[in-house]
This record gives sequence, C-alpha cells and structure tokens, in this order.
Amino acid sequence: MTLSAADLRDRVLAGDRRAVARAITVLERGGDDGAALHALLYPHAGRALRLGVTGPPGAGKSTLVDRLARELHGDFSRLAVLAVDPSSPVTHGALLGDRIRMGALQELPGVFVRSMASRGLLGGLGPAALEVMDGLDAAGFDLVLVETVGVGQSELDVAFAADITLVVVAPGAGDGIQALKAGLLEMADIVCVNKSDLGGAETVRNDLMAAFELSSARSEKAPAILLASSKTGEGVGALAASVRELAGDEDFRIRFGERRRRAAQRRIVGGLQREAGHAAERVLESDPVLVTSVVDGLMTPRAASHEVFRRILKGETS
Amino acid sequence: MTLSAADLRDRVLAGDRRAVARAITVLERGGDDGAALHALLYPHAGRALRLGVTGPPGAGKSTLVDRLARELHGDFSRLAVLAVDPSSPVTHGALLGDRIRMGALQELPGVFVRSMASRGLLGGLGPAALEVMDGLDAAGFDLVLVETVGVGQSELDVAFAADITLVVVAPGAGDGIQALKAGLLEMADIVCVNKSDLGGAETVRNDLMAAFELSSARSEKAPAILLASSKTGEGVGALAASVRELAGDEDFRIRFGERRRRAAQRRIVGGLQREAGHAAERVLESDPVLVTSVVDGLMTPRAASHEVFRRILKGETS
Repeated sequence: MTLSAADLRDRVLAGDRRAVARAITVLERGGDDGAALHALLYPHAGRALRLGVTGPPGAGKSTLVDRLARELHGDFSRLAVLAVDPSSPVTHGALLGDRIRMGALQELPGVFVRSMASRGLLGGLGPAALEVMDGLDAAGFDLVLVETVGVGQSELDVAFAADITLVVVAPGAGDGIQALKAGLLEMADIVCVNKSDLGGAETVRNDLMAAFELSSARSEKAPAILLASSKTGEGVGALAASVRELAGDEDFRIRFGERRRRAAQRRIVGGLQREAGHAAERVLESDPVLVTSVVDGLMTPRAASHEVFRRILKGETS
Repeated sequence: MTLSAADLRDRVLAGDRRAVARAITVLERGGDDGAALHALLYPHAGRALRLGVTGPPGAGKSTLVDRLARELHGDFSRLAVLAVDPSSPVTHGALLGDRIRMGALQELPGVFVRSMASRGLLGGLGPAALEVMDGLDAAGFDLVLVETVGVGQSELDVAFAADITLVVVAPGAGDGIQALKAGLLEMADIVCVNKSDLGGAETVRNDLMAAFELSSARSEKAPAILLASSKTGEGVGALAASVRELAGDEDFRIRFGERRRRAAQRRIVGGLQREAGHAAERVLESDPVLVTSVVDGLMTPRAASHEVFRRILKGETS
C-alpha cells in the first residue's frame, strides 16, 4: 500500500502507531522523501520534552533508560524512546543485540521504542536523528527520550538537541574521570553514577562533585549528581524525580527557550555547512589541481579553502 | 626578543630546537600570526612519516607511545611526538598530569616531545594540531608521532592526517568491542591490544580477528593485531617492526599518496566549511527572525539553511 506524504502526516498526527513507525523509517532514510515528510511534520513539533541520555560505552545506559522510562511513564503517559547507536561498517550493527532488551518497554501503553543506527563516527547523532525526534514530537509524545553512546560528536549533538541532558557514568573503568577528560559532563543537567550496587560509586560522585566545585568555567549551575543501579533499580526513582523537578522548574523552563534557539541555530549552520561542503567537493572534482597543489606544498590548505569559497561565491559551481 | 616570521622559519628549517618550540606555540595559538608562519613552513613539509596513535581513554596509549618512540628511534633518528589531549573547560587540563611521564623521552638526542590541548569535543584534533604537525614535518623530523585520545572526532582526524594509524585497545573494560562499536578500528593499519600482562588480551585479539574476518565492508586489508604490554615492554619491539615494515612496503607507500590526497581534500573542505559557518553566523546575527521562525515551527531548519546559503551567495553578508 502506498500512502501519500500528506496522508502519512495525518495518521502520524492522529497518533496511529503503525504510521509513526513508517514515518520514522522515511525520516531515517532521508533523501527527498524524508525531507518532504519532515517539512509536513515539523510545524507540529515543539511540544514534547526532550530528554537526552548519554555517557561512555559500558556505563549501562540502555538498562537505565528502560527503568527510567518506566518511572517517568506515570508523568508522561505518551513516551517515546529513541536509541541511537553508532553503526560500524565493519560490524554492520551486529553488536547491537543488547537493544533487544528494551522490547518489553514497548509493550506499555503509549510507549514507543525505536533504535536507529547513527552514521558512524563521522555523522555523530546526525541530522536524521534530529528529524526523527521532530517526527516523534509531532506524533504527540509528551516525552522524547533519546539515548546515544558518548563516543563521537553524538553526545554533544544530543546535549544540543535536548531540553534536559542526563549523563550516565559508572565506577570501575575510571568513567567519571574519563568523562570529565572528554568534556562529556560540561553540558550535563543531571549526572547519574550508575552501577551503585558495585563498589566505588560514592568515590566517583565525590570526585565529580569536587571537580564541579573547582570549576569556574561553567556558566550554568552544577548538575545534580545521583547514584543509581540500573541492575537493582535503586535510585532510579530519585533520578526520575530529578527529571520531573527540572521539567517543572520555572527558571529551567526559561532556559529551554534559550536552548531551543541555540539548537535551531546549530541546525541551520550545520545544514549550511553540509551544503557548502557538497559545493566545495564539486569544485575540487572539477579542478583536481587544487588538491594536488596542496599535497605538493605549493598552496596551503587554508589558501585552497579561500579559493574554493571564492569560486562558490562567484557561482563557479553547478 | 622578537623574531620575524621569516627568521623563525629559517631557524625552524635549520632544526633549531628552541625555534621549533616557539614556532609550535605560534601555530597552536593560531590567528593571523599562526596562519602567516604556517604559510611559510608548509612548502617545506611533506617529507616526514606521520604515525597516528589513538584509542579509547585508559588504554595506556601514553606509556606505549613512550616505549614505541624509543624502539623507533633507531630507524628515525629525528623523531617528534605530539600528544593531543582534549581540554575540558571544567578541568582546565588539570587531569593531564600523566603527560609528565613522557619527559624523559625528550632527553634522547633528536627527540622532541610536545603536548597540546585540543579544543574539547567540539574541535576534535582541530586544524591547529594539523598545522603543528606540518611545522614539525618542516623542521625535518623523520617521524611525527601524533597521539590522541579516541573520544571525539579526534581519532578520525588523526586517521585522516596520518600515513599509518595505530589503534590501541586494552582488555578489561570491553575496549575491543567498544572500539568496534565506535567505528574506531575501521581506519586502523595496526591494532595493538595493550596490557597483555593482564588477563584477557588474547581473547580480545581473537574477538577482533573474528570481527575483521566477518567484515566485508572494509576495502583495505585487515590490520595486523598485535599484543603488547606498555608496562613490561613485551611486544613493543614487534609493534615497532610492524610500523617499520609498513613504512617500507611498496604497496603501502602508494597508498600514502592516496591518503595524502584524501587528507588534503578533507582539510580544504573543512576549512571552507568553517568559513561558510562564520558567514552563516553573521547572516543569522543580522536577521534573528530566521532562528525564531525555526524555533516556532514556521520554517524547517533545512529551509533556513537554504535561505542562509542563498544570502551568502548573493553577498548579503559582510
């Protein structure tokens, strides 16, 4: 059965579950069809609370997200979970079997779970994931929870796209310190030290608190740092309460507006840069001597960039 | 004492150690002075072999690089090590004390060691690091070894900038599988399973070998996977031999040329995108209504990007 984009939009806006699943596939695939559907859905997005969950690999995010979603389901009866995994061309996503665990969550009324592949390290979260979030938002989910593994640009992209950012770390692998090193905690609104059933979680929390206290660079106030165990469920209720509290906080809601402006600006500039990048590739293809000159040391990369920009501005590109 | 850029270049080309240190500071700082000095040095770069070392945090890269550099010092009498660390505004680099360990390496004749901060997750390796590599290359080092922690775009940037890419993982924290998940191994020429003195290194190697065998997506041949212990030094000799062998391999040297073209293209396009991004920001500053329209759902981010691009092409920006 084929369905026009407008029909699909109408069914998505009506909350038809199968239509939502189909729409997400179209948005994820991108291209002209994805862009056309996104343009139809985008005006209806913007009402959902967007909660981003990120953190280093192995911090136990998937299980925690499962439990957290159950806790928040009371407040947000229509809840969508989007798990974004980096897809390695080497593995073809074969290692992503742990996603299957989230199946049972999907069976709760009003809950929708979807995992999508990111485009590998190059892409980060990628524009497609943002458009899928818009689609879920337009479909009327009150809470869109997006989980991503913090290995590339993706954690930053999540933080930029989310109203509230939860960073998950675990004791043991030096996660806390590594996350600090990686800059992962800079944009956290809430930090969860997971696996509190194992030893060392308290120490990680204390280290993180000390690091945040020392920090003068952070403009927003230090995040709440909570212990939880995705295994036993301990602390997940308090974590949900912390999300709930932020969502209802007046000051914080004002910041949502600022964040959404920032997110919009970032998306516009990012899209422009992709367009300009394609134009630049066309210039370099039509004149390979530019690249050769740079390789041979006859022209600096910077001078070549200027030259390409000049040609694009002069319209010397298709 | 002030030194003209041309004087500084002459001293760098003559291999003056203090001049090299000063030049790197200028290149790292960037700006007009950095660009001017880079333009003077760039024509003299291109002769060094560039070895990139990356891998997840905690894999023991710094110690391994120290040992590997000592092993390779016989083949490459003039050897530079550049350690790029993500600098977190939260920590102000306070956690980077482990760099100090590399001090003794610097005392070997012809060896130059420098660490520089990356610009956090946003920047990845960053254009400044590439320009510092060019400076070291121009200064006549035969081998430029650049080490970066694989947390952001940086590992990709290193792989693109390097002639040979060595990825370091360690058993224990599920590093091997996590590195696969993160796409970290796709561009590896050599994989080192470090900490072979601990248990589990063999298993990680076998897992990785199996994963590479399954892979059909990889166009280049599977990388060598070697065990080593940066603690005891075991296996580091074989690792150095593997680097040496690749560097001397005829087929591989042909690939160097292809890689350098690819690296040059990437640098040109990246520079163009930064320029275009700045132009886009100026457009959005001069007309904030565009961002507001996107936030309010009146215009998609994609449509706004098109509009900004149109305005840049029409010259509606300073």
